[in-house]
Amino acid sequence: MVKKVLKFGGTSVGTIDRIQHIANIIKKEQLNGNKVIAVVSAMAGKTNELVKMSNEISEEFNKRELDVLLSSGEQVTCALLSGALIKLKINAQSWLNWQIPILTEGDHTNARIVNMNVEKINKFLDSNGVAIIPGFQGISKNGEITTLGRGGSDATAVAIAKIFNADTCEIYTDVDGVFSTDPNKIPVAKKIEKISYDEMLELSSLGAKVMQSSAVQTAMMYDIPLEVRSTFTDRKGTKIFSQENIDYTKSVTGVAYSKDDAKITITGVEDKPGVAANIFEPLSKAQINVDMVIQNISSDQKTTDITFTVKRDEISKTKKILKENSKINYKQIIQNEKVAKVSIVGAGMVSTPGVTYRMFRALSDEGINILAISTSEIKLSVIIDEEKTLSAIKKLHTIFDLD
Amino acid sequence: MVKKVLKFGGTSVGTIDRIQHIANIIKKEQLNGNKVIAVVSAMAGKTNELVKMSNEISEEFNKRELDVLLSSGEQVTCALLSGALIKLKINAQSWLNWQIPILTEGDHTNARIVNMNVEKINKFLDSNGVAIIPGFQGISKNGEITTLGRGGSDATAVAIAKIFNADTCEIYTDVDGVFSTDPNKIPVAKKIEKISYDEMLELSSLGAKVMQSSAVQTAMMYDIPLEVRSTFTDRKGTKIFSQENIDYTKSVTGVAYSKDDAKITITGVEDKPGVAANIFEPLSKAQINVDMVIQNISSDQKTTDITFTVKRDEISKTKKILKENSKINYKQIIQNEKVAKVSIVGAGMVSTPGVTYRMFRALSDEGINILAISTSEIKLSVIIDEEKTLSAIKKLHTIFDLD
Repeated sequence: MVKKVLKFGGTSVGTIDRIQHIANIIKKEQLNGNKVIAVVSAMAGKTNELVKMSNEISEEFNKRELDVLLSSGEQVTCALLSGALIKLKINAQSWLNWQIPILTEGDHTNARIVNMNVEKINKFLDSNGVAIIPGFQGISKNGEITTLGRGGSDATAVAIAKIFNADTCEIYTDVDGVFSTDPNKIPVAKKIEKISYDEMLELSSLGAKVMQSSAVQTAMMYDIPLEVRSTFTDRKGTKIFSQENIDYTKSVTGVAYSKDDAKITITGVEDKPGVAANIFEPLSKAQINVDMVIQNISSDQKTTDITFTVKRDEISKTKKILKENSKINYKQIIQNEKVAKVSIVGAGMVSTPGVTYRMFRALSDEGINILAISTSEIKLSVIIDEEKTLSAIKKLHTIFDLD
Repeated sequence: MVKKVLKFGGTSVGTIDRIQHIANIIKKEQLNGNKVIAVVSAMAGKTNELVKMSNEISEEFNKRELDVLLSSGEQVTCALLSGALIKLKINAQSWLNWQIPILTEGDHTNARIVNMNVEKINKFLDSNGVAIIPGFQGISKNGEITTLGRGGSDATAVAIAKIFNADTCEIYTDVDGVFSTDPNKIPVAKKIEKISYDEMLELSSLGAKVMQSSAVQTAMMYDIPLEVRSTFTDRKGTKIFSQENIDYTKSVTGVAYSKDDAKITITGVEDKPGVAANIFEPLSKAQINVDMVIQNISSDQKTTDITFTVKRDEISKTKKILKENSKINYKQIIQNEKVAKVSIVGAGMVSTPGVTYRMFRALSDEGINILAISTSEIKLSVIIDEEKTLSAIKKLHTIFDLD
């Protein structure tokens, strides 16, 4: 007998028909002899609708009350799904955040799960029951409702898999799994059968938004096997394991990209310790998310040029902060507002010589100029002109045998 | 300093604008030095929407899960109203059913409040806080969510007024108060300034659906002063007291009516003990709500005729049960599907001679035939042809000085 956590996202529970459909998926799992805990999101669009109402009252709506408001969405799904299962003669029951309880720490709208009581639910599973649990929420030690931030239902599912010692955690969603690149842009994109946590993290943070990154990190930390699969087909999904369980036949697993980037270069900065900290500390305090950072020695060899990328809509805020920064001297600020980041990701890269060279050559063959480069153990990213994004992805997908 | 419970119904919180409007009403009450507990319903239409979803899954949706589902509606209103008050710089906070907790007894979807913890909320009120509480719900002693049945927010408001020892309980709604008759039918209908609990009960059960009857009964039992008033005007509402606090200048307080009635007469029933019980027991078991019952001696003086009224849509079910009832012998079942009940209600009636006579004479003057009569201490009801309803109400409203 296998203990499974099944998580169903917003589109998977977006209508009554779909809730009845996933009730049948759960029923099948139970008839196959599995113990099932289901974690559900709010019905598609519901959370946005609630946020919109709160914004109509105030853009700075009180966060304690926002958590009370938003947590109602998953409560509705829990009750509807339990009712749908009971209609199918399954012994199902909803367990709300305070009924379990799911204990959290941290601020309202951004809490994290620290513990939950397993006794009652384990007893219920032993009596052939299916437990339905709302994702995205918990309570604080003072008994206040807290939420985990957007995408938090994935975090709930992984936390439950860990705390209940489940054998597997399956993320049901509206895509077939994780793809070698965006299937909407590149029709030959292929579903990846197995992928490591690290690769998944690089791919998801780069735009393959299939699963919340911090949930993947938690799964990696506790070695919880994940599977991302479609609610709407019977096809197998993508299995996510630790790296040692994967036999790599290809050096590159996928090609990712991010849009809406902008590149800023500060030229003629003094080349001495603490300069980078002086530049980036005020940006970080202003909540500006700096992505790639590259530092080169300048032509005069006494000063240096620093290049970094931010999201395009934060470029004026970034420039304002740089100009008001009295701790740095520089010659010029150069910006390029229309760049994209394209990355190849693969745990096999490290053991395959020449991947870097092959990437640069391929881009050069397409006439694509590389504006900046950044590398890690399992990822190689370049900044290029935004309009070349698609041809870069296509070319890289082909030359690394992903088509 | 006065402690007030203010209850806002579904239309009063039906939009974000209206929630902001009632936040201002509450702010004003607080600035006037009052301690305020607000009880809120789900936003107008919300409960119906949730019920509709559950019905799409099953007409016999599990009641435990239905309570989980429906209770989310008031939770949303609580959070939005608290946020709106906080924006107005009022120290407001929502308290959910399990956070207080509101302890209930009885079945799911039909529970009743038995107790709640007052300590934390009283402390919060003392620190100038406004407590926002969801109506219509509580938890059982096993920690399950329960609801109180339709209109249950009134019951919550009255229970809170009782348990928190409030000075007054104000029911904010979409009408100006309780009227001497239906203002939509009779334009000269007048708002009643003061009314006794008993009169209110007779009027509300007869069609003036301003407040849930069992909530009025609870208020009567514990002598909690009520006021029904409009959320949308500054006009005074209707105050509801115990009878001894009212100085009656008129014998009749209001004229009520009920539609969609049907009258059934069983003729030639044996005139012996137990016959009525034999007739009505199976009807009661089939959940058929029998209203007026009148028994006359028949012309042969050995048998009797029994007349009673039921709702029109239950007439075929009623007749089927009567025909299948082997315990009774009768000559004939006569039905009249198009009757209405018109009643005059007034605590002053008992001390005013001739009210009965004046009612019958007035109806006779209008050419209205009385099909059945029933009386109580503060009410006099007649069954008439449905098409005469309006002219009967008009006439009675005039002759008892209510115009």
